[in-house]
Amino acid sequence: MSTDLVDAQVSPTGQFATLSKYEIHKLTDSSRGPHYQLFRNCALAVLNSGSNIDDGKELLETYADFDISVIPTERSVKLEVRNAPAIAFVDGKMIRGIAEHLFAVLRDIIYVNSEITGDPRYDLVSAQGVTDAVFHILRNAGTFNRNRVPRLVVCWGGHSISGEEYDYTKEVGYELALRHLDICTGCGPGAMKGPMKGAAIGHAKQRDRHGQYLGITEPGIIAAEAPNAIVNQLVIMPDIEKRLEAFVRTGHGIIVFPGGAGTAEEILYLLGILLHEENKQQPFPVIFTGPASAADYFTRIDQFIAATLGEAARSRYQIIIDDPAQVARQMAAGIDEVRQHRQQTGDAYYFNWQLKVSTEFQRPFIPTHKNMRNLALHNNQEPYLLAANLRRAFSGIVSGNVKDEGIRSVEKNGPYELCGDPAMMRSMDTLLESFTQQHRMKLPGKVYTPCYRIAEK
Amino acid sequence: MSTDLVDAQVSPTGQFATLSKYEIHKLTDSSRGPHYQLFRNCALAVLNSGSNIDDGKELLETYADFDISVIPTERSVKLEVRNAPAIAFVDGKMIRGIAEHLFAVLRDIIYVNSEITGDPRYDLVSAQGVTDAVFHILRNAGTFNRNRVPRLVVCWGGHSISGEEYDYTKEVGYELALRHLDICTGCGPGAMKGPMKGAAIGHAKQRDRHGQYLGITEPGIIAAEAPNAIVNQLVIMPDIEKRLEAFVRTGHGIIVFPGGAGTAEEILYLLGILLHEENKQQPFPVIFTGPASAADYFTRIDQFIAATLGEAARSRYQIIIDDPAQVARQMAAGIDEVRQHRQQTGDAYYFNWQLKVSTEFQRPFIPTHKNMRNLALHNNQEPYLLAANLRRAFSGIVSGNVKDEGIRSVEKNGPYELCGDPAMMRSMDTLLESFTQQHRMKLPGKVYTPCYRIAEK
Amino acid sequence: MSTDLVDAQVSPTGQFATLSKYEIHKLTDSSRGPHYQLFRNCALAVLNSGSNIDDGKELLETYADFDISVIPTERSVKLEVRNAPAIAFVDGKMIRGIAEHLFAVLRDIIYVNSEITGDPRYDLVSAQGVTDAVFHILRNAGTFNRNRVPRLVVCWGGHSISGEEYDYTKEVGYELALRHLDICTGCGPGAMKGPMKGAAIGHAKQRDRHGQYLGITEPGIIAAEAPNAIVNQLVIMPDIEKRLEAFVRTGHGIIVFPGGAGTAEEILYLLGILLHEENKQQPFPVIFTGPASAADYFTRIDQFIAATLGEAARSRYQIIIDDPAQVARQMAAGIDEVRQHRQQTGDAYYFNWQLKVSTEFQRPFIPTHKNMRNLALHNNQEPYLLAANLRRAFSGIVSGNVKDEGIRSVEKNGPYELCGDPAMMRSMDTLLESFTQQHRMKLPGKVYTPCYRIAEK
Amino acid sequence: MSTDLVDAQVSPTGQFATLSKYEIHKLTDSSRGPHYQLFRNCALAVLNSGSNIDDGKELLETYADFDISVIPTERSVKLEVRNAPAIAFVDGKMIRGIAEHLFAVLRDIIYVNSEITGDPRYDLVSAQGVTDAVFHILRNAGTFNRNRVPRLVVCWGGHSISGEEYDYTKEVGYELALRHLDICTGCGPGAMKGPMKGAAIGHAKQRDRHGQYLGITEPGIIAAEAPNAIVNQLVIMPDIEKRLEAFVRTGHGIIVFPGGAGTAEEILYLLGILLHEENKQQPFPVIFTGPASAADYFTRIDQFIAATLGEAARSRYQIIIDDPAQVARQMAAGIDEVRQHRQQTGDAYYFNWQLKVSTEFQRPFIPTHKNMRNLALHNNQEPYLLAANLRRAFSGIVSGNVKDEGIRSVEKNGPYELCGDPAMMRSMDTLLESFTQQHRMKLPGKVYTPCYRIAEK
Repeated sequence: MSTDLVDAQVSPTGQFATLSKYEIHKLTDSSRGPHYQLFRNCALAVLNSGSNIDDGKELLETYADFDISVIPTERSVKLEVRNAPAIAFVDGKMIRGIAEHLFAVLRDIIYVNSEITGDPRYDLVSAQGVTDAVFHILRNAGTFNRNRVPRLVVCWGGHSISGEEYDYTKEVGYELALRHLDICTGCGPGAMKGPMKGAAIGHAKQRDRHGQYLGITEPGIIAAEAPNAIVNQLVIMPDIEKRLEAFVRTGHGIIVFPGGAGTAEEILYLLGILLHEENKQQPFPVIFTGPASAADYFTRIDQFIAATLGEAARSRYQIIIDDPAQVARQMAAGIDEVRQHRQQTGDAYYFNWQLKVSTEFQRPFIPTHKNMRNLALHNNQEPYLLAANLRRAFSGIVSGNVKDEGIRSVEKNGPYELCGDPAMMRSMDTLLESFTQQHRMKLPGKVYTPCYRIAEK
Repeated sequence: MSTDLVDAQVSPTGQFATLSKYEIHKLTDSSRGPHYQLFRNCALAVLNSGSNIDDGKELLETYADFDISVIPTERSVKLEVRNAPAIAFVDGKMIRGIAEHLFAVLRDIIYVNSEITGDPRYDLVSAQGVTDAVFHILRNAGTFNRNRVPRLVVCWGGHSISGEEYDYTKEVGYELALRHLDICTGCGPGAMKGPMKGAAIGHAKQRDRHGQYLGITEPGIIAAEAPNAIVNQLVIMPDIEKRLEAFVRTGHGIIVFPGGAGTAEEILYLLGILLHEENKQQPFPVIFTGPASAADYFTRIDQFIAATLGEAARSRYQIIIDDPAQVARQMAAGIDEVRQHRQQTGDAYYFNWQLKVSTEFQRPFIPTHKNMRNLALHNNQEPYLLAANLRRAFSGIVSGNVKDEGIRSVEKNGPYELCGDPAMMRSMDTLLESFTQQHRMKLPGKVYTPCYRIAEK
Repeated sequence: MSTDLVDAQVSPTGQFATLSKYEIHKLTDSSRGPHYQLFRNCALAVLNSGSNIDDGKELLETYADFDISVIPTERSVKLEVRNAPAIAFVDGKMIRGIAEHLFAVLRDIIYVNSEITGDPRYDLVSAQGVTDAVFHILRNAGTFNRNRVPRLVVCWGGHSISGEEYDYTKEVGYELALRHLDICTGCGPGAMKGPMKGAAIGHAKQRDRHGQYLGITEPGIIAAEAPNAIVNQLVIMPDIEKRLEAFVRTGHGIIVFPGGAGTAEEILYLLGILLHEENKQQPFPVIFTGPASAADYFTRIDQFIAATLGEAARSRYQIIIDDPAQVARQMAAGIDEVRQHRQQTGDAYYFNWQLKVSTEFQRPFIPTHKNMRNLALHNNQEPYLLAANLRRAFSGIVSGNVKDEGIRSVEKNGPYELCGDPAMMRSMDTLLESFTQQHRMKLPGKVYTPCYRIAEK
Repeated sequence: MSTDLVDAQVSPTGQFATLSKYEIHKLTDSSRGPHYQLFRNCALAVLNSGSNIDDGKELLETYADFDISVIPTERSVKLEVRNAPAIAFVDGKMIRGIAEHLFAVLRDIIYVNSEITGDPRYDLVSAQGVTDAVFHILRNAGTFNRNRVPRLVVCWGGHSISGEEYDYTKEVGYELALRHLDICTGCGPGAMKGPMKGAAIGHAKQRDRHGQYLGITEPGIIAAEAPNAIVNQLVIMPDIEKRLEAFVRTGHGIIVFPGGAGTAEEILYLLGILLHEENKQQPFPVIFTGPASAADYFTRIDQFIAATLGEAARSRYQIIIDDPAQVARQMAAGIDEVRQHRQQTGDAYYFNWQLKVSTEFQRPFIPTHKNMRNLALHNNQEPYLLAANLRRAFSGIVSGNVKDEGIRSVEKNGPYELCGDPAMMRSMDTLLESFTQQHRMKLPGKVYTPCYRIAEK
C-alpha cells in the first residue's frame, strides 16, 4: 500500500522551539542512542492514532519500514519521518494534534530520559524522590495550570467493554462536562475514550473552550492504546507505577467504570493508598458506576472489598448505577470539598502533595510463580498493606492472562498458585469466577482457562 | 411530566448586558407586543434543542404552558422562563450555549424588528436596501470577524436523508475542518447537522479552537429544525429570501448534499444569481456531492440543468461522488481564489458586497394556483430569469407537499398546473419522477401523490 | 513652513471598520453637511496635540489650509487630510493614538449628531432622556467595560496652575495608580494632564497594562485643550452640561485641585447634585487637595460653602493638604464603598444610574445681564437649588472673564450685577476677592478688573 | 528612620510559582549558602530603586539591618524581607514591578548559580559553551519571544552625562518607539534611563502595549545602577563579559551615546567582534549619536578608531549628530536588514547565534600593572585582536579611575604604564586628554589625575 506511506519533516512546538546548540546536539545524539527503538515505536503508535489497528504487533509489522529521526537546524530541531502512516497527514502536512503528540513522545522518551530520570541529581529511590520525579515529568509536559480550580476527573475502566457500557461512559463524560469538569484517562479505546467524547460535546454546549483532556500512558501500552484525537495533553510516564501515581496526584476525583482484572488492580491500588493512616482526613471522591447491566459487576467488587479490606475501605467510594447525572453531581460536590481542603491547607490545586504514597505502591512487582505464591494474603497486617498485596495478585493475573511473559511462564510452570487465609481465598475465587462468567477475563468468543489456582493455607 | 418542566431566570450576554433605561423599557415593551407569540415559539424551539421532538406542532402542544418574559433590572434585562423543557438545564441552571441561543432569539425577533426592519429610515424595497438590512442583521449578530480569512463553507441538503448520506456529510465536514474551513448551515438535522459534527472533530484534531459553526434560520422553520448544540453563532433572518441572501453573501463557497424539491429550489436560486451578467467574473466554488448511492440523484439534477439553463449554468458547479477529501481539497482551492479576488478588488472578506442579487430573488413568491400556472417557463428570457421562475415552481411544489396552506389549497383546487415549453416540461417531469422514485418527495413509507400536473403549452 | 504640512489617508479603527453601503453613504454625506466646520476644527485640534500652540485662534490661522474629508471605499471609509500638522505623523504615517482620536472626532461629531442627538426617537428634554443620551454617547465610545471594578477617579482643577501645583497633581496621579485607580479628566494641560502623567508611571510600576485614561471634552474647548497623548479613550460630549453629567455618572470619585472661578463652578455643580434628597445615601468620595501653598485657596472655598450651603454640603468632601499618598488612600477607601453600594443595589459599575441629576443641572444657563441679576441668591430655597443658582453665577463670571460674548456684553453694559441675601453676598465678595489676590481670575501679569458687582437686596 | 523600614512577605511569580519539594528544599538551602551576601545586596539594590541613593556603599550602610530569606511553603517559596526600604511598598504591599525584579534576583543569583553555571554538565570554557550559558540564562529569564520580529535596540553611554545629553537620549528613545522599536540598556541612570523614558511615551502614543524594556546588569554594578521602574525584564548576568555578550547577541542594533572611558571600552568590544572575519557579512547597525554639543566627542573617537583599527572598523558605524528622528530611521532600516538576513539564513530572531565571539572577548581581563604593561598595542596583529587589547587598556583605565582595587593599586605602584607603537600611543594620549578636558573621566568638579602613563616602545 505505497499510497499509505508519507515522508515529511515536522517543525517543533512548545519547549522544543527555542533550543541552545548544546541542547540541539544532545537531543540529536540521544535520539540515536539506546532509547531509539522505544522512541520510534511510540512515535509510530501516535502517528497511527485513529486507524483500526489496535494490536501493537500488527502495527509494527505493517509499518516495518517506518523511520524517525531528529534533524538539527540552525536554532532548533525538526522531526523527519519516513514511511509514516498516511492517516496522520492532510495533503502532505501533519495534522497539528498528531504533531503535538509526536513532540510529546520526543519530550517524554528522549528528553525525560536524559534530563530527569537520567540525571544523577534526582533521587529515584525514596518515596519523596519518586514523587518529585512524577511532578517534574508532569510539569515539564505543561499539564499544570495554576489558575485552574480543581476540576480534573480521572476515568478508569476496561478498554474492551460492551457497546452499552461504552455509551454509558459517554453519557457520564457529557454530564461531567456540563458541570465544567475535565477528563483524564489512560488513552486508548473503551472506557478511556468514551468519557472524552461525551465531554467534548458537553464542553461545547457550555462554551467551555479550554476543556482539558489529559491522557497519561506509558511506553508498554501506548502501541495498543494510542491516544485518541481528543487528548490535548499527552504524557508518557516511564512505568506503570509512576503512571498510577500521576493519576492519583493530578486528578481531583476518580470514576471507575466496569473492567476486568486490570480494573480490579487499579481499585486495589487506589483503596490501598486511601486506607493509609495519613490519608484518612483527605477528601477524595471515588465513584464506581455503570449501566444497569453492570450492577452485578460492582456488587461483586463491593462484596470482595467488604470481605477483605472491610468497612473502612467501603466508606471511601460510592456505587451509583445507571444515573450519569447523579454521578456528575456527586463528583462535582466531592471535588468542591477537595478545593476547600486544598485551600485550607495551602496545598496546590494542580498536584496533590499531601497524599501519602508509600514505597509499597511505588516499587514494581514482578509476577514470578514464586512471588505470587509468597504474597501475604491474610488479615494479620494493616489493611493498606493487604491492599498492596491483593493488587499484586491481580497484577499477576493480568500478566498471566494477556502479557507475553506471563502467558509463557504459565504455559511452562502451570497456573500461578495463590495461597492465603481460607475465607479470603474463597472471596477471591468467587470474584474471579464472576469475571469469567461476565466475559471480562478474555475477549468475547474465547473460552477462558484460568491462569491461577486458589489455595487455602 | 411535571419533573420535565423548569422555571428560571437567565442573565444576558453580549449586547444585552449594557443597556440604557430607554432600551430596557423598549425591549420589555416590545416583547409584550405583536411579536410575542413568535418570540415565545422560537424561544421554545431553542430550549428544546437536542430532544427527540422535531415536529413543531407536537412541541407546542407538549409545552402548552411554556411562557417567557423580559424582566427589567437596574441596568439591563433578564429573561424569565416558566414551564421550560428540562433538557435545557443542568441542576437548575441553563446551559450556556442554550442561553446564548435564547438571547439570539430576543435579539433577532424583538430587537431587529424594532431597530432594523421596523425603523422607517431603512429602505426595505430596493435591492441595495434589502442587502443593507441583511448586512445589519448579520453584523448585529456578531458574525463578522474582520481578521478572519475567507473560510466559511455553506452546506445545503435535505434534513431527512439516509444514514449513509448522513455519514457522508460528516466525513465531508471532517475533511473541510482538517483544512481549516468552517461550516454554515440552516440549523436542524440531516445534512444541516452532519457537516458540523464532522467538523468539530476535525477542528479538534487541528487544535483549531475558534471554529465557526454558523446557523442561519428563519422563524417559520426554527421549530422543526432547532439549532443543534454545535451551532455557536445563531442568526434568525426575517424571511426565506433574506436567509438565502445571507447564505450566499456570507459564505465563501457552497456544498450541496442530496435533498428533495427544497434542495432543487436552493440550487436554482444559487445558479440564477451566478448566471447574472454582473456575477460572471466572480469566483464562487460550488460542489454537488454525495456517496456513491447518490450518484443518480446528481445525474438527474445535472441533466435537468443542462436541458433548461444550459452549459453556462453547468460550468458553475462540479459534481464529486464519494470522495470527501477531494471535495474539501477542491473547496479549499476555490476559496483561495475567492480570497485573492476579494483582496484584489478591495471587497470585504466577511460579506460579499459585489455579488449582484436582483429583486427577482429578493421578493417572496406566493404559490397560488394562478401564480403557479402563470410562471414563465420557457427559453425566451435571460437564463437567470428562467432560473428565478423555475425556483418559484419548485418552491410551490415544496409548499404543496409539506406546508399547511399549500396542502389545503391542493386538496381544494386539485394539483398545481405548470405550463411551459414542451421540452422543458418533459425535463421537469422526469426530474420530479426520479425524486418520487428515490423517496425524496415524502417521508419514507408513504405513497406520494403528486401535487402538480405538467402541461405543455 | 511647507515642510510641516502632511497629506495622508487614514484607515478606520473600531466601529468604522465594518460599515454597510447605507452607512458609508450617510457618513460621507453628513461629513459635508452643516457640521463640517466643527468636525474640521476638532480634527485639527486633535492632530496638533503635543505642539506648543494652545490657543484655538492661533491654531486655526496657522493651519488655514487644513482640510479633512471622508472618502468612501469598497467596504468602509477613509479619512483624507490635507495640509495637516506634521507632528501627528512618523515618516508619513499617522501615529496610531492620534488616528484613534481622529476617528473619535468623526464618531462624536458626525455619527453622534446623525444617530443619537439627531434621531427623533431620542427624547432630549426630560431628565431621563438626557441621561440616556449621555449613556449612549459614552457606550458608543466604548468607555464601558462590564468586567472592570470601580476604579475611575475624575480629576478637576485649573489648566493654568503653578509649577508647584502641577507637580503635585502628578504626585497624586502616581499614588492613585499605585493603588490601581484610573484617571478621567477634561483633556488639556495643567490639572488635566498632570494626574495622567503621574498615573502612567504608577501603572507601569504595578505592571497594570490596562490603565484607563479617559478624556471627556466638548467642541467648544477641544481646540484650546487638546487631548494629551496619554488619553487612550477620548469622548467629545455635545455640550458643557452633558460633559459634566458624564463626569459624575462615569467617575467613581472626584478629586478637585486648585483652579479659578471655573473650578468653583464645578464644585457647586457637584455639591448641588449631592445635596439632592435622593442622593443623600449615595457614597461618593470627593477630595479637595493641593500642595501646602494651596491651603488658603481651599480654606476660602470651604468658608464660602459653609456660609452658603451649610454643613450638609461640607460633609460631602474632605480637604487634604500636601499629602498625595493620603489622598489616594482615602479615595481608594471611598471607591471601595461605592463598589459595595453598587453591588448591594444591583447598579452598574460603569455608569451611576441611581444618581439624581435634575433638570436644573442639565439645562444650559445663558449669562445675560438680566439672567444674572435675577438669580435667586438666598436661603429661602432648598440648598440644592441654591447650589444650582450659585453655579450659574460663577458660570457667568467665567464668561465675563474669558469668553468672547461675555467680555463684549460687559464692555457694553457694565459689570454683571449679582443681588441677594446680604450675608451671602458678602461671602461671595470675599471669595472672589481672594481669587483675584491669588491671581486665579486672569493669567499672571495682568491686572484684573472685576466683571461683576455685588449688590445686597 | 524607623518609619522608612518595612517587613513583608512576597509571593512568587513566574517560574517560582510551581516548585517541587526538591526544588523548594534546594532553593531554601542555596539561599543560605555562600551566595547569600550577593543575593542580599542585589535584592537591596532592587528594593531601593527610585530613591536618590545611587552609591552602593551608602546604600549598604543606610540599610545595614536589611535581611532577606527564602521561606518554604506547602507548594512553593516566599521571600521574607526585614527592614526593607519603604519606597518599594504601597500601604505595606510590595509594588508589583519591584517584586518581579526581586524574584529576578533570586532567579539569577541563586537559581542560575545552582542550575546553570554551577551544573558540571555545562562547559564554561569553550566559546560555544560560554555562549550556550548566556543563552540559557536569557531564556530562563523569559526574554525570548519567538513571535517577535527583530526590534530590540541596545543603548550604551555614560550614566553621568549632562542634562542636555540626557534629554537627547530621551528624544532618541521616543523616536525609536514611534517606529515600534524596543530598548535594552544596562539599567541605571543617565544614558541607561533616558531612552526608556522616551520610549515609554512613544509606545503609548502608538498604542504599543507590549514594549520591551530589557535591563541587563551584573552583580558588581547593580547596587550603583539599580534598574529603573520602566525595566520590565531584568537579567543579572554572572560577569561583565557575559553581560557584553548578552547585549550583542540579543540586541538587533546598537546606539552609542556619549560616555567616558567605559563607553570607549564598549565601543572597542563591539568593533573587535564585528571586525572578525566570520562576522564581515553580518548586518549589524551601529550608530554613534549625541546633541550638537557632543559632536567633538565623537570626532575624537572616530579619529582614534581611524588611527588604530582603520577604515574597516569605521565602516561598521555611522555618526549622526543632533537628529533623533534620523537616528531612529537609520536604525529601523538597519534592523530591517537584520530581519531579512536572519530569515534567509534561518537564524533565530531572538538570539544571534551566527555572531562569532572569540574567547579573547569572553575571558576576563585582570588589570594588574604587569598585565597592562604587557598589552600588545601595535599593528602587527589582526585588527580584531588589536581591538581586544585596546579594550583591555580602557578597561584598566576604568578600573584605575573608579574601582576600589584599581585605585589602591595605582596609589601603591604609580600609574599604569601602557607601551606600544609610537603613533598608536599618541592617538591614545590625544583621546584620553580630550576625555579629561570634557570632564568625562571623573565626576564634575574634581581635578583628574591620570592613572596611566603612555610610553612609546
